[in-house]
Amino acid sequence: MKTYNVAILGATGAVGREMLKVLGERNFPVKSLKLLASKRSAGMKIAFRGEELTVEEATHDSFKGMDIVLGAASNALAKEMAPYIVEAGAVFVDNSSAFRMDPEIPLVVPEINPEDVKWNKGIIANPNCSTIITVTAVNALNALSPITAMIASTYQATSGAGAAGPVELENEVNAIAKGESYAPQVFPYQIAYNVIPYIGSPSVDDYTTEEMKMQNEGRKIMHLPDLKVTCTCVRVPVMRSHSISVTVRTEKKISVEDAKKAIAAAPGCVLVDDLANKKFPMPLDTSDQDLVFVGRIRDDLTCDNGLAIWCCGDQVRKGAATNAVQIAELLTK
Amino acid sequence: MKTYNVAILGATGAVGREMLKVLGERNFPVKSLKLLASKRSAGMKIAFRGEELTVEEATHDSFKGMDIVLGAASNALAKEMAPYIVEAGAVFVDNSSAFRMDPEIPLVVPEINPEDVKWNKGIIANPNCSTIITVTAVNALNALSPITAMIASTYQATSGAGAAGPVELENEVNAIAKGESYAPQVFPYQIAYNVIPYIGSPSVDDYTTEEMKMQNEGRKIMHLPDLKVTCTCVRVPVMRSHSISVTVRTEKKISVEDAKKAIAAAPGCVLVDDLANKKFPMPLDTSDQDLVFVGRIRDDLTCDNGLAIWCCGDQVRKGAATNAVQIAELLTK
Repeated sequence: MKTYNVAILGATGAVGREMLKVLGERNFPVKSLKLLASKRSAGMKIAFRGEELTVEEATHDSFKGMDIVLGAASNALAKEMAPYIVEAGAVFVDNSSAFRMDPEIPLVVPEINPEDVKWNKGIIANPNCSTIITVTAVNALNALSPITAMIASTYQATSGAGAAGPVELENEVNAIAKGESYAPQVFPYQIAYNVIPYIGSPSVDDYTTEEMKMQNEGRKIMHLPDLKVTCTCVRVPVMRSHSISVTVRTEKKISVEDAKKAIAAAPGCVLVDDLANKKFPMPLDTSDQDLVFVGRIRDDLTCDNGLAIWCCGDQVRKGAATNAVQIAELLTK
Repeated sequence: MKTYNVAILGATGAVGREMLKVLGERNFPVKSLKLLASKRSAGMKIAFRGEELTVEEATHDSFKGMDIVLGAASNALAKEMAPYIVEAGAVFVDNSSAFRMDPEIPLVVPEINPEDVKWNKGIIANPNCSTIITVTAVNALNALSPITAMIASTYQATSGAGAAGPVELENEVNAIAKGESYAPQVFPYQIAYNVIPYIGSPSVDDYTTEEMKMQNEGRKIMHLPDLKVTCTCVRVPVMRSHSISVTVRTEKKISVEDAKKAIAAAPGCVLVDDLANKKFPMPLDTSDQDLVFVGRIRDDLTCDNGLAIWCCGDQVRKGAATNAVQIAELLTK
């Protein structure tokens, strides 16, 4: 079996560490693994398959001989390193948002548009976490009737802000229990016992950057250039796994029964939908695994061709690390 | 000034205690105040305006001489006591859901349909908490162009389940911090660090009872019999104040600018909408006060006549106790 020289750029962050874990779990055919991070993290030891690897500082020369580079770094570092990765002949599977909307660069969810991997020119972008979870949940409906619009409200976990997010939530909870104060550093306001309708930064027309990703990236992944999406992104005091309440409008009416069948059969999805027995997706049940749980499927009462859906998925895994490793797996086929 | 003999039915619960507090704060013209509860709570002492009142057991004979009875009890107790309250000549302002959809009984949000108080026959219903907050936020748009549809996703605080809700959240957080287990009693699953897309009980077509209230009660309060509402109700680990992400469709297009002006001028609302300066409604800021905070107002990208809106309000106060006392105030005018 062919094996590959793999590097992780940004190996010490939450997504980078999860990429390492997922490579091991899925028995990715690794010949060698190089862990790259900023100078600050160089020298750190991280275990992989029983071996202790030393984190190296990422430089322009880090990529010689590499076949695949998994990117879990900032937009700035991704942009800086991309030309050197491509020049070294590796494929850069990048989780930053730097290249996602570049028409020359594929944006891939392997369950939805694996064919787009083929036209890569050395860079493949990994989509936004909430977008991956939502499109994985609803894409099966597209085969029954094209999706024309979605209205989504998200319930995003603190881990979406990196490893420091859940730590801040825990610190705040502890401080409140002791009657002490705690100055938020990761989130703009206290997230413990609160919800914050602001993720990313201001974008066009009073939407945030995070909210516009659902429309822009959703169009590109599902090959629906005219898809319209209204999204409201909200941070909630959850450790891990994002949830999304979404109504989906399609060209023709899809019955609830047909939607359930299609979603139950869709790759990457689990149907969890039994209201009478209190079965529905919840973030506590979807953390540390790779499937998107979908439920609460019912008719959208505001339009003839709509469905209301609730979905949850682990945004560090399927929403980031696992999706990137799945893209790398497509490259090996 | 005329003063009134007032009773609170269910005076020891979260909403009943808040009604007592609100009567005091708003200087309601109380002649006498009677606190009624189940036999279990009889004998309990509760202070009102510096005086210590003793809780009495609610019986069919409790209402003689009363002018106004504020109801904060169960549907069953409300139904049992209503005929005796009406027979005694008092007006029953009831927070239970027992009478809300009865066409013979007004359902009132004083900022929206105060005129409906006039046709009461002894019972006036106080609407559902999330519904009150949402309609208070969006009703001003109706004057610009009638609302035809809403798609709402809620972020409902644990206090919506009564005083035991926040206690359960705190107990779970403490148990988790100690590595101990805790069996949920109020909510069907752990609510700490989780979100639960299930409030109320199963209703028609896989909606929950709580979700259908937004459409059914919204129609009655805003006098919009054809209003269509798709609602997804979700419990979040917040102590107090509900938040709602809602898109509102109107007959004609309302500009974001006109919507902001109308909402800023609407009774009961505060416009908190400045994304660049990170100003938007949050539950931490709206607790223990009576106004509904409204923000994140922007065009709904999925339809020509739509707006996306985010609102927060204290559901124990404006969503329950304060709204009931405001109805009682209308009765004194």
